[in-house]
Amino acid sequence: MATDETFEIAQASKLGGAHSVGLVETKTWTFEDPPLMLDCGQVLTPVTQAYETYGELSPERDNAILIFHALSGDAHVAGYHAPDDQRPGWWDTMVGPGKAFDTDKYFLICANVIGGCRGSTGPSSINPATGRPYGPDFPILTLSDMVRAQERLVTHLGIDKLLAVTGGSMGGMMALDWAVRFPDRVHAVVAIATTARITAQSIAFNEVGRQAIMSDPHWKQGDYYDGPSPESGLAVARMIGHITYLSDEQMHRKFGRRLQDRDALCYDFGTEFQVESYLRYQGNSFVRRFDANSYLYITKAIDYFDLANGHRSLVESLERAQSEFLVISFTSDWLFPAEQAKELVRALQANGLLTTFLEIMSNYGHDAFLLPNDEMSAAVSGFLTHAQKHVRDQGGRP
Amino acid sequence: MATDETFEIAQASKLGGAHSVGLVETKTWTFEDPPLMLDCGQVLTPVTQAYETYGELSPERDNAILIFHALSGDAHVAGYHAPDDQRPGWWDTMVGPGKAFDTDKYFLICANVIGGCRGSTGPSSINPATGRPYGPDFPILTLSDMVRAQERLVTHLGIDKLLAVTGGSMGGMMALDWAVRFPDRVHAVVAIATTARITAQSIAFNEVGRQAIMSDPHWKQGDYYDGPSPESGLAVARMIGHITYLSDEQMHRKFGRRLQDRDALCYDFGTEFQVESYLRYQGNSFVRRFDANSYLYITKAIDYFDLANGHRSLVESLERAQSEFLVISFTSDWLFPAEQAKELVRALQANGLLTTFLEIMSNYGHDAFLLPNDEMSAAVSGFLTHAQKHVRDQGGRP
Repeated sequence: MATDETFEIAQASKLGGAHSVGLVETKTWTFEDPPLMLDCGQVLTPVTQAYETYGELSPERDNAILIFHALSGDAHVAGYHAPDDQRPGWWDTMVGPGKAFDTDKYFLICANVIGGCRGSTGPSSINPATGRPYGPDFPILTLSDMVRAQERLVTHLGIDKLLAVTGGSMGGMMALDWAVRFPDRVHAVVAIATTARITAQSIAFNEVGRQAIMSDPHWKQGDYYDGPSPESGLAVARMIGHITYLSDEQMHRKFGRRLQDRDALCYDFGTEFQVESYLRYQGNSFVRRFDANSYLYITKAIDYFDLANGHRSLVESLERAQSEFLVISFTSDWLFPAEQAKELVRALQANGLLTTFLEIMSNYGHDAFLLPNDEMSAAVSGFLTHAQKHVRDQGGRP
Repeated sequence: MATDETFEIAQASKLGGAHSVGLVETKTWTFEDPPLMLDCGQVLTPVTQAYETYGELSPERDNAILIFHALSGDAHVAGYHAPDDQRPGWWDTMVGPGKAFDTDKYFLICANVIGGCRGSTGPSSINPATGRPYGPDFPILTLSDMVRAQERLVTHLGIDKLLAVTGGSMGGMMALDWAVRFPDRVHAVVAIATTARITAQSIAFNEVGRQAIMSDPHWKQGDYYDGPSPESGLAVARMIGHITYLSDEQMHRKFGRRLQDRDALCYDFGTEFQVESYLRYQGNSFVRRFDANSYLYITKAIDYFDLANGHRSLVESLERAQSEFLVISFTSDWLFPAEQAKELVRALQANGLLTTFLEIMSNYGHDAFLLPNDEMSAAVSGFLTHAQKHVRDQGGRP
């Protein structure tokens, strides 16, 4: 997500002299040994992960928070890469000095997911076996594979147990996965605009996006890196996704039925509604920063994710979890509806896990988690303060 | 619409020995003089319209009902074209002896819209000026153009004033257009799952569908009739539309998250969710019966339709209407939400027009209007009986 719109709203609400982490840079770390065993049975090696960190790790190493990004996100959560950058990282409203994820208190980490195209190993990376980009030979990934790769990074950074894992949308699904996969390595979970498994309708939207990419003749069964990219298909996929990130009410307020150029009783194919030109812009700008194969692999991983996979129920799947949970949903989010968050909360509570649930009134649809929201900020800030106090009261490491 | 799913449900609920209009055939009628002046200022001539009729026109010519079809529909509303036809017309559950649109009482007419591809003049028709298919030279159409073409047909059939006009979705929009354009030529309006103007979100979905078609290299700026058709793009457009016709709950009940072939913790790109193969099937079967250019022209006409165009408000736009109205919406229809129907009803009532509004509880989304529904049938049947009685009590012609 991280659309122009979210950016504009975020900018508009930014206070003068906003607290920013300032200039940051993306680092990379590569591991080979032991190689990463994927859920599909294949091995991925070497594995490079692009990541950023903000704030300082405490001497006790008890203040680290891992942020998982969403489908189209990357490691660049906050701050700027250059003094003349036009926009900050995708969650700059939430991460910085004095913000909800307070960089004066916490050490924040975010890594680009494997399978992605923003610095971590993915389908566009060079396959060491051939010296050419993986393309369709890239192994099938699950969200759990991506999580396990990041567990290596956390270990590499010298952190035994995280204060928290967090994320919105797909990032929230990964945070839940961490909570059941590494229960003794995280104290608190902040899961926002997310679910234990997406709906059939969301799978359907993802599938149509994939069909758009795969029917683009430039896709060439995924083997397109020495020629033009399947940009048209990827743009259509992005436009579909974009509609699902917004609420109808928000679209109506933003665009209404206004025409781009003129008011016409009769159209021609050159006349556009504002919403049309907006979508085309979104689609076209996305293809400049995202790889079509990554879109295929990551959406498929999202579709297949189900926390209850291999268990008899969602409740059973959460039996191993030991963390405290803050679950946040937004009223107008029809892609990750509040009802799903409530189902998750009931399953957490059925396991006796301390769980706070907050359903925030918002007209911004799924994208609400990317926008400034005082309720969200206050809830996250309070929850983390409590979690850190809890950890430190226990004495020693969390 | 008229999907496999709606067909299956309709079939399943069909009573043994269902009342059918039996074998029917599509007729065509062509007019040239005076030529049809389009809203865009161009002339379309000649104009052929494919149409079907059911039941008998009364000697008083006071029992005729014009049905407008939806985006992907056609003139074949009820009955069968051949004894071995696998399926009847798209509204067979509503049209037939003893049904809501009772062919023992009424004379039903339905014509394929101009701009379409099911027998009426459209972009795939031969342009008399060139001897080749119109393609992108086909003039821009509005829903009102389609309505005015059908007014010619109604006149040709010897009908001065219709007992009713009706339609669902786009068909309902055309019924509303008739009501304000030819107020003295219709007594009653049955507008189902429709609106005076679609939402920004619906425009957005239509636009992405058009982008999918226009970015298919086979589209060739619309000039593809001597080569392969842009089937991939049209299939993607249809898949997008199809998701919007269903409710999430219905998708969940029908498909859940079930895999097509096997239960897998790890997917491969050959594994599919049932919802995926269903959508692919829908997309692929649609391209065999629909023309991509017609899809572009008709969706654009839907997007631009606004009953209030040229007026200061929706209320003002309805000032000329004289009919009685039955407006029906469905609770789970998120493409044409009930709130829009209520806005229409308020505007009708503000004009002192006798208006009945029925919001039907349904889980079937927008497609609900195509499915058997006792409440809808009873409401339509009662409304038409009342309308006919009213007309005949007035004596003479309606």
